[in-house]
Amino acid sequence: MKIGIAGLGLIGGSLALALRERHEVTAYDTDERARAAAKADGIRIVSRLDELVPADAVLVATPISAIVPALEQLAARADGAVLLDTGSLKRAVADYAARAPVGARIVGGHPMAGTTSAGFSAADAELFRGRAFLLVPTARSDDGAMAIAGTIVRDVGAAVTVCSADVHDRAMARLVAGPLATAAALAVVGAQAEPLVGAAGPGFRDSTRLAETPADLAMELLFGNSADAAAAIASIIEALIQLRRSLERGDRDYVRSFLAAARSVRGELA
Amino acid sequence: MKIGIAGLGLIGGSLALALRERHEVTAYDTDERARAAAKADGIRIVSRLDELVPADAVLVATPISAIVPALEQLAARADGAVLLDTGSLKRAVADYAARAPVGARIVGGHPMAGTTSAGFSAADAELFRGRAFLLVPTARSDDGAMAIAGTIVRDVGAAVTVCSADVHDRAMARLVAGPLATAAALAVVGAQAEPLVGAAGPGFRDSTRLAETPADLAMELLFGNSADAAAAIASIIEALIQLRRSLERGDRDYVRSFLAAARSVRGELA
Repeated sequence: MKIGIAGLGLIGGSLALALRERHEVTAYDTDERARAAAKADGIRIVSRLDELVPADAVLVATPISAIVPALEQLAARADGAVLLDTGSLKRAVADYAARAPVGARIVGGHPMAGTTSAGFSAADAELFRGRAFLLVPTARSDDGAMAIAGTIVRDVGAAVTVCSADVHDRAMARLVAGPLATAAALAVVGAQAEPLVGAAGPGFRDSTRLAETPADLAMELLFGNSADAAAAIASIIEALIQLRRSLERGDRDYVRSFLAAARSVRGELA
Repeated sequence: MKIGIAGLGLIGGSLALALRERHEVTAYDTDERARAAAKADGIRIVSRLDELVPADAVLVATPISAIVPALEQLAARADGAVLLDTGSLKRAVADYAARAPVGARIVGGHPMAGTTSAGFSAADAELFRGRAFLLVPTARSDDGAMAIAGTIVRDVGAAVTVCSADVHDRAMARLVAGPLATAAALAVVGAQAEPLVGAAGPGFRDSTRLAETPADLAMELLFGNSADAAAAIASIIEALIQLRRSLERGDRDYVRSFLAAARSVRGELA
């Protein structure tokens, strides 16, 4: 297929590297240095977003706040190209699709992969291998568009899961925004462990890794869906209050049951 | 040196594997299968705790609740052997040392390494390499005892940090018990993300990894120092309440500052 990629950060760059063997990939980024880095890596670059079409599909891997503007610009001249974005929140894309031009073909996407490194220099053709890649049908998703999106997902080594924008965004508040909030809280409270914070073991390191999420992305993840994020944090607070009270009153049975429930959730992770 | 090791779980087994090239290592475990597994791996085994002495040092790597009883039993016939434990909490060891027989030589130790796997089968000679190994002097720690403990730490590839039992236990509530509590809370709240919890990405996986801590160890980490653990959890709750309120009132400046503070703590980790 002829595939355009808008945005050459970690996700867009990794998509370009993962797809270029099997497909005719052309990419664009608003940042000239990102374009130059990708070009130096052998990726075909264009100098304007519009030049990504005509294509079979255009993957929109910009920062979240730029996704709908990019979709609007592309939809005006997509001529049948499937527009698949890769942002971590999906309601805004679904809302836009509902008012997009008839004939536009729009699918929401979210690869469940990432690192706390950013930019094309961190891109990796293997980033998506074995990961889930969520697809959200919109009012402008036909069967053919879903099939093209599914082919792209499989071609980067990921596995398709289909869900609605509402289910997606509520779930991500619990799987992404919540862990980001606790990582930050643990790090700040960990500072009270001075002079021993530098001695922290792998448990503390893993638990606080998301505190290294680039600031702009972290702000988008929290404020892009602030009601659900606040609700997720409230649920985490409630669980911690119960744990703390059980510790204070010596209720070993409650804590043991709580830990068993937590372990069982880990067991559901593939 | 002649080194005895009491307890052949993950930590004791890894110490045995890391030390046996340079030292004459003899080990013991109350569990016959653990003794057999270590013996099959070429570690010299004795069938009673007492037989670990005479030695230059005995490392006590039993579950936390068994450490002081083992120290009591060994101190009665240690004949100058340095007794170094490896538990995650140090006040009980320091308290015991203060009432131990004059002539006993006791140093508290805590290697900041581990995995959520348990038992000798998970033991790894490289487990401690590059990690901090905290040493806590007690009322029965002389300079020579500290020097022997320091040599052992360096011989397993770790770096010595010295602190008091109080500083240690308060810090560990924030670096170990707090992350364990949030991992469990995140996992339980993550279950509300069904049907998408199985699609969770590496951020959620890392953030909840400590929820796989073996149940008995997790209970000891929380209840062995429940006042400090409850205080650490209370601090985390307070931080999350501030984050949630800031999200609800749209206070982007507060959240951005909070995230920056969290990132700076990560920067202190070696």
